[in-house]
Order: sequence, then structure tokens, then C-alpha cells
Amino acid sequence: MERSAIPDSTSPEPGAESLESGCAPEAARDTAPAVTLLICTTCRAPGNDAPPDAERDGARLLASACAATVSDGVAVVGVSCLANCKRALSAAMVRRDGWTYVFGDLSPDSAADLLAGAALLAGSQDGLMPWRGRPDELKRGMVARIPPLSLPKETR
Amino acid sequence: MERSAIPDSTSPEPGAESLESGCAPEAARDTAPAVTLLICTTCRAPGNDAPPDAERDGARLLASACAATVSDGVAVVGVSCLANCKRALSAAMVRRDGWTYVFGDLSPDSAADLLAGAALLAGSQDGLMPWRGRPDELKRGMVARIPPLSLPKETR
Repeated sequence: MERSAIPDSTSPEPGAESLESGCAPEAARDTAPAVTLLICTTCRAPGNDAPPDAERDGARLLASACAATVSDGVAVVGVSCLANCKRALSAAMVRRDGWTYVFGDLSPDSAADLLAGAALLAGSQDGLMPWRGRPDELKRGMVARIPPLSLPKETR
Repeated sequence: MERSAIPDSTSPEPGAESLESGCAPEAARDTAPAVTLLICTTCRAPGNDAPPDAERDGARLLASACAATVSDGVAVVGVSCLANCKRALSAAMVRRDGWTYVFGDLSPDSAADLLAGAALLAGSQDGLMPWRGRPDELKRGMVARIPPLSLPKETR
């Protein structure tokens, strides 16, 4: 399937060839990261009508994040499609035993804000990304959050 | 914090009091569910200007899902806020060792489609929700998907 396919009611999502690259070899890590930052490498910025085989804005965002200083406890991985195409560029953060976040309306220059948010999430006590101190781009660009299934449940 | 708060750039998300109810007691399950369907109980349908303390459309959707027949391997849980407010009503599905999906633009009548999608996801071989056979509402309403971190990674 062409990687530029955008999921909608007529075209299916790409398949499972998803986690495609990271900033550092897994073998180089002593411990599992507290937060994995997943950056969609297929996204094009709104209005970018470059040919499909041109470098994608999402791939530029990933490269920028990998070139930056990444906090301890944070891993950065490229993903071929997060299916958040309506609000590209897109990224997600998965906190181990905590919450998962999806962000949209990002730009190729969003690496610093994403890494700041990932560090906040990695250091949080309750597994949520604190609102205070969160970069504005990660407030405006909030798409969804998903709780960890380990949270206690009340039964009706 | 008031439960009707909607996350945006000025108002923070609700806290971590998130997984609030399920269709069946955990003790009644023999095994962990393959798929957990999380339904946002705070969402109001667009245009619904009922008072904040009126029953929420999302709570109606949860009640409808719990009243329906739920496939083996699927659990249904209410969540107080998935922060997908721009495309309410909202739900997420978490496949154990598989993909997580977020859906929006749902209605109080979407329970059957959500449960059909959850059953598809629970039965899939690759941890993805098949496109073929997926209810149209879960194609049009696709908000995001997040891969499992267990997928093999290539290192650049």
C-alpha cells in the first residue's frame, strides 16, 4: 500500500509496518523508557503540495527530535501512520503504566515542545502530563488522551 | 474540578479520576479482555445545550453499550474525559498487545458500531482493526491509532 494513503471512509489505513526507526539502538538502553514519543513520519503540513515522494514534514520533525537532546526516560520513535491526518502533523506519547496522549496541529519545528512535554510526562507522579508548564502547542494541539487500564475501576 | 471542563488552551484537563464504571464486575471475568472499549461519559453531542448537570450523551452511549450483547474478549468501561472534545462523542479501544484506536463524531446510537468494531479488533490476527467489515462510522470517525510498543523497530 502506498504510504501516502490517508485513512478516510474510502481508503483503508496503512498496515502494521509501523514502528520504523528510533533515535538510538534499543541495545543502548539500560532500562525501558518511561515515555515513548511516537512521531508520524507520513504527515504533510497543511498546504504542502510537494510530490508524494518528497521528504515528508513528519519525517523532518522526527529528524529534528532525534537531533535534539532527549531527556533520560524518553525514547523517540518514528511511526508510518497515526491516522490523525485531519490534524497533521501528529505525534503520540505513551507513558509506561500511565496515560497515552495524541497531539495534532504540530509543525516541523515542534520537536522542542514535544520533548519538553515528554519529559514532563516521564517525570509526573500520577502518570498524567501536568497542565502547568506544558508547552502551549501541547494544550492547543490536544487530540485525545487514553487512560492506563491499570487504574482502579468502580463497578456500577 | 467540574466534570464539564473541556480541555483547551485555557482550561486544564480533568484529573485522573478516570475509569469510573464497567459493564460487569472485574471479578466476573475469567481472563483479561483482549479489547477494552473506553467510552467518554462527559461528552455532549454537538448542539446539545442542556444544563451541565443533565445526563450526558456520552453517559447514554455507555449505558446503551452496557445494555447490549458484548462479545467475549471485550470489556466496556466509562471514562470521565478522553479530551477528544472537538469531535465528541468519543470512544477509544485498547487491544492488549495490539493497537489503540480513538474514534470521534459518534452519537448516543453508536453502541452497536462500537461493539462490532471492538469484536473485530479482538479477533484480528495482527492486532489492527480490519478495514474490511469495519462499520462506516468507525471509518469516518477515525481520530487516531497508536501502535503497541512491542512492534519490532528498525534502528536508523
